[in-house]
Amino acid sequence: MRIIVNLKAYRCDPVEIAQAASSVTADGVSIGVAAQPADIAAVAEAGAIPWAQHVSPSGHGSHTGSILANSVTRHGAKGTLLNHSERRLTVANIDRAIEAATDAGLLTCVCANTPAQIGAVANLGPDAVAIEPPALIGTGTPVSQAEPDIVLDAIDAARTVDPSIDVYCGAGISSPDDIAAASDLGADGVLLASAVAKAEEPATALNELIAPLN
Amino acid sequence: MRIIVNLKAYRCDPVEIAQAASSVTADGVSIGVAAQPADIAAVAEAGAIPWAQHVSPSGHGSHTGSILANSVTRHGAKGTLLNHSERRLTVANIDRAIEAATDAGLLTCVCANTPAQIGAVANLGPDAVAIEPPALIGTGTPVSQAEPDIVLDAIDAARTVDPSIDVYCGAGISSPDDIAAASDLGADGVLLASAVAKAEEPATALNELIAPLN
Amino acid sequence: MRIIVNLKAYRCDPVEIAQAASSVTADGVSIGVAAQPADIAAVAEAGAIPWAQHVSPSGHGSHTGSILANSVTRHGAKGTLLNHSERRLTVANIDRAIEAATDAGLLTCVCANTPAQIGAVANLGPDAVAIEPPALIGTGTPVSQAEPDIVLDAIDAARTVDPSIDVYCGAGISSPDDIAAASDLGADGVLLASAVAKAEEPATALNELIAPLN
Amino acid sequence: MRIIVNLKAYRCDPVEIAQAASSVTADGVSIGVAAQPADIAAVAEAGAIPWAQHVSPSGHGSHTGSILANSVTRHGAKGTLLNHSERRLTVANIDRAIEAATDAGLLTCVCANTPAQIGAVANLGPDAVAIEPPALIGTGTPVSQAEPDIVLDAIDAARTVDPSIDVYCGAGISSPDDIAAASDLGADGVLLASAVAKAEEPATALNELIAPLN
Repeated sequence: MRIIVNLKAYRCDPVEIAQAASSVTADGVSIGVAAQPADIAAVAEAGAIPWAQHVSPSGHGSHTGSILANSVTRHGAKGTLLNHSERRLTVANIDRAIEAATDAGLLTCVCANTPAQIGAVANLGPDAVAIEPPALIGTGTPVSQAEPDIVLDAIDAARTVDPSIDVYCGAGISSPDDIAAASDLGADGVLLASAVAKAEEPATALNELIAPLN
Repeated sequence: MRIIVNLKAYRCDPVEIAQAASSVTADGVSIGVAAQPADIAAVAEAGAIPWAQHVSPSGHGSHTGSILANSVTRHGAKGTLLNHSERRLTVANIDRAIEAATDAGLLTCVCANTPAQIGAVANLGPDAVAIEPPALIGTGTPVSQAEPDIVLDAIDAARTVDPSIDVYCGAGISSPDDIAAASDLGADGVLLASAVAKAEEPATALNELIAPLN
Repeated sequence: MRIIVNLKAYRCDPVEIAQAASSVTADGVSIGVAAQPADIAAVAEAGAIPWAQHVSPSGHGSHTGSILANSVTRHGAKGTLLNHSERRLTVANIDRAIEAATDAGLLTCVCANTPAQIGAVANLGPDAVAIEPPALIGTGTPVSQAEPDIVLDAIDAARTVDPSIDVYCGAGISSPDDIAAASDLGADGVLLASAVAKAEEPATALNELIAPLN
Repeated sequence: MRIIVNLKAYRCDPVEIAQAASSVTADGVSIGVAAQPADIAAVAEAGAIPWAQHVSPSGHGSHTGSILANSVTRHGAKGTLLNHSERRLTVANIDRAIEAATDAGLLTCVCANTPAQIGAVANLGPDAVAIEPPALIGTGTPVSQAEPDIVLDAIDAARTVDPSIDVYCGAGISSPDDIAAASDLGADGVLLASAVAKAEEPATALNELIAPLN
């Protein structure tokens, strides 16, 4: 199971969470930490696998205020989220951002709301997609109870386009049961956010969350 | 062959072009006129088939400055372009705009740059897609000479997703040869723009353009 | 007192509201109806003064999906809102949209959230500004009770830049008392929305709202 | 004279340029280096004064893909550009971004195209503004020859709103003569970009550029 802890712009200590992520080991579990771009080097130094939360579709050039894929890679990022529900892109720009990220050596995980949208973004050739059912974003409703079909349909839509693509469950994951449910439904990974980033003790929280995977 | 004449924001007389479009008849040829929203009623009154150039993803509600699908339908629009290279949308908003347009009774034709992007937007369930190879946008380079493969690949990408979808050739069409080439490549339609909208005599221009189809 | 009834994308009959607006007469009161672009001609035919809810910063040219100032003017629009809280623009685009609208013969009323922002947009030379205190948008809280100072400060900020500019109160207006309060505070106009657009009987609603002005 | 070297997303070594900036000393000259967010810590470690090229209007919270002001500050940033011509913001978001940046301890320099727009953004209370005459952006045309009046008018517009605000000349600066001209016109600072970032030897380039200031 692949886990990405999305720190968003939360009031949290990225180094503490990176240390937590690097301390947790479980068979077949890899944990990335999707940090603010300015924090990527510090996350790498703390021993974790840094991810970007977004990179710009544009590569090198006159692009003031962009988040350059090559720049986050240089500081250790291994992958990037794209098209998160809080950072939507046009189709043409998802396409260009996947290309910019891939050229810079980043894995790409493109988020989308529905199975049809998952099928759409899978056509653009990312390494992974993440289904974020809108009904689960920020609600605390567990995906296993609320919308198992949407996860199954998303996996099906993605695999129809690309049988080897990874599919993440990107919303509604906040308990060990949710991770177990995502795994049972066939997801290759999950996106975590506040359940770790806002935990009193991130290492403890992470260990508890992944316990069902051992 | 389906033809959509996109008037963009050109300095032109929409009524004159609508009259031209309604005067041209050829077997198996239908001609829509994609007009500014404020001009849709006038295009309908002139006897042509009005299309919108864009409708908003949002439906009824507090959306000041939107282009409401129901509003253009009420004045006679039969379809709408979406995601034109001059009016890009996020994946989620293309999805919502297709739904809003379809609910209002509009046909939808979603534009995209590359075969992969065509495959992507076809997943969202529009009635048609239009391939706009960037190398041809506004260049005057004819599609038949420049990039026949991109049209063939776009048709293939779209039909893999939905065998009954219509595929338009959306850039590089400015001569009778281009329309003939698009038809020979298997396109169901073409988007025309300045070749008609900026013509001295739109009716003459249209008749010449479609001559190879008779 | 200048009144603009903003129909947004509400489920309403623009012609019925236009007729209501044209039937209401009171000394010193003018009523514009800010309609969907496709409805502007119908609003004009019903005898009301049409406004656009937004026009694009771009003028004539290759701008598919835009709302061309010249196009709404041609069908009778007399003015346009710009930068409404539901349709924000960059500073550069407000500047260009004011120019495009003015060149087309439209009055311009630029919305903003705070007195500082009102001072900012007043610098760009519109005919009018509208203060939309965020705390009042869509809440039903009357401006007279909630934030009289913000209206006074907005008027002050606008007049410091341009002593002859008109200042509208653009949120929190849903009762006769609100209009009276806006007038007492020195506003030259008010933006109305659901209080008229969603009224069972728009003419009755408008007459009641403006009663204090007689 | 305050100098900000904007590295944009150029193919350059931010550390080499930071070392160049920290090695250059001249009376009354301060040099900031506006870097990609992921490079800010490295710029600080190299001894230069880091600036951000942009920070998000949103502060802490669920804002995936943002550039958090607190995050760049934590790694040493001292200021941020905002509303650069390559990264435009709405009026409301400039206002919020100034607040977010100021709360995080960053200086703010807001860019705009014309004297009227400079007056507009000055109303939002930044520490500095930068006039970027569109005719000079990326053209190599020196500001001293091309548009001296636009700089004088921008200074006047900014100082009318806030007598203590700093005014930068933000485009058309690529030679020692340009810096001298900007200084003679009354500018407090200049934005440099490719003239330093793309120089074979950034330290030499910087020393030559500021020679007239000694």
